[in-house]
Amino acid sequence: MKQSIGAKTLLYPHPVLIVCTYDAAGTPDAMTAAWGGICSSDPPSVAVSVQKARKTYENLMARSAFTVCIPPARYVAEADYFGIESGRNADKIRAAGLTAVQSDVVDAPYIAEFPVVLECRVSQTVEIGIHTQFIGEIVDVKVDGSVLGSDGKPNVEKIAPFIYDSAARTYRAVGSEIARAFSAGLALKR
Amino acid sequence: MKQSIGAKTLLYPHPVLIVCTYDAAGTPDAMTAAWGGICSSDPPSVAVSVQKARKTYENLMARSAFTVCIPPARYVAEADYFGIESGRNADKIRAAGLTAVQSDVVDAPYIAEFPVVLECRVSQTVEIGIHTQFIGEIVDVKVDGSVLGSDGKPNVEKIAPFIYDSAARTYRAVGSEIARAFSAGLALKR
Repeated sequence: MKQSIGAKTLLYPHPVLIVCTYDAAGTPDAMTAAWGGICSSDPPSVAVSVQKARKTYENLMARSAFTVCIPPARYVAEADYFGIESGRNADKIRAAGLTAVQSDVVDAPYIAEFPVVLECRVSQTVEIGIHTQFIGEIVDVKVDGSVLGSDGKPNVEKIAPFIYDSAARTYRAVGSEIARAFSAGLALKR
Repeated sequence: MKQSIGAKTLLYPHPVLIVCTYDAAGTPDAMTAAWGGICSSDPPSVAVSVQKARKTYENLMARSAFTVCIPPARYVAEADYFGIESGRNADKIRAAGLTAVQSDVVDAPYIAEFPVVLECRVSQTVEIGIHTQFIGEIVDVKVDGSVLGSDGKPNVEKIAPFIYDSAARTYRAVGSEIARAFSAGLALKR
């Protein structure tokens, strides 16, 4: 029997996306966003929602570019830190002991230690209540050679991404394979 | 060393969202969407991207309402089926042996067997390349009592959601807890 728990932003899984931008002075900044995801296949696009009070909002409006970095589980403390500190108070990437590298295709930095990077140009902004959704066209994706599998594709076990559980306020690893996509449901198709 | 793999819709994790709608005849339909996620905290809102050729697109345009159901791992075949069959060819929810129930707050059905349901009213649509992004205000969230923990909150292990890995084209379980959010990074904050 279902029961109402009210209008909440509950969803499984939320991603943990590290949005990297430059500020007006050229200092790299990083912010953790769980409100986001892929929003179009062509042009390949990713959406991230940011509140206006955030420094990242200013940076995005000024530079119209960002990267989305996928943090591996061994950097969960750093990823959490990027969500609880403001770039107004600290040079966050440096304070976390990580390395900002300038993207070669967009006006934004990425974090060298994070294995998967989406390099994005802001294509539109959408006002949704207290958040502004920045839609980024994915211009290129960079991955570490070390996280590619023997088939040449990004390998999720080598990447070791994690998810955010907003109900429990915890981060969780990605678990084992349970089925093949576009295949598991074939038996139900007439 | 990072290498370019081109402009791709790579992200970890993609969610597996079952978008349920009514068609013009009142038949419940379900479609699997991986392009989506929460997009605002207030009003609580979720975004799902749908191509115009999909039956769900027509239904959303006509009814301006949908639910997002989170499928548990034991229904991975049914969730996959909703992504590889069209509602034009089959009464998908019935064919999958599942039960459509009318939401009591929006003009859309949900799937009784899926433990978490977001009931949404379309608040805006955004054209992003080949996809239309439907932004839904979350009017209410319904959960099965059986997936609530002893603290009264939704319990991820009882819900057993799964994720989609687009590089490997597989579904994976959600794994074990690796850290507490808004806490793991405190040591890095001065």
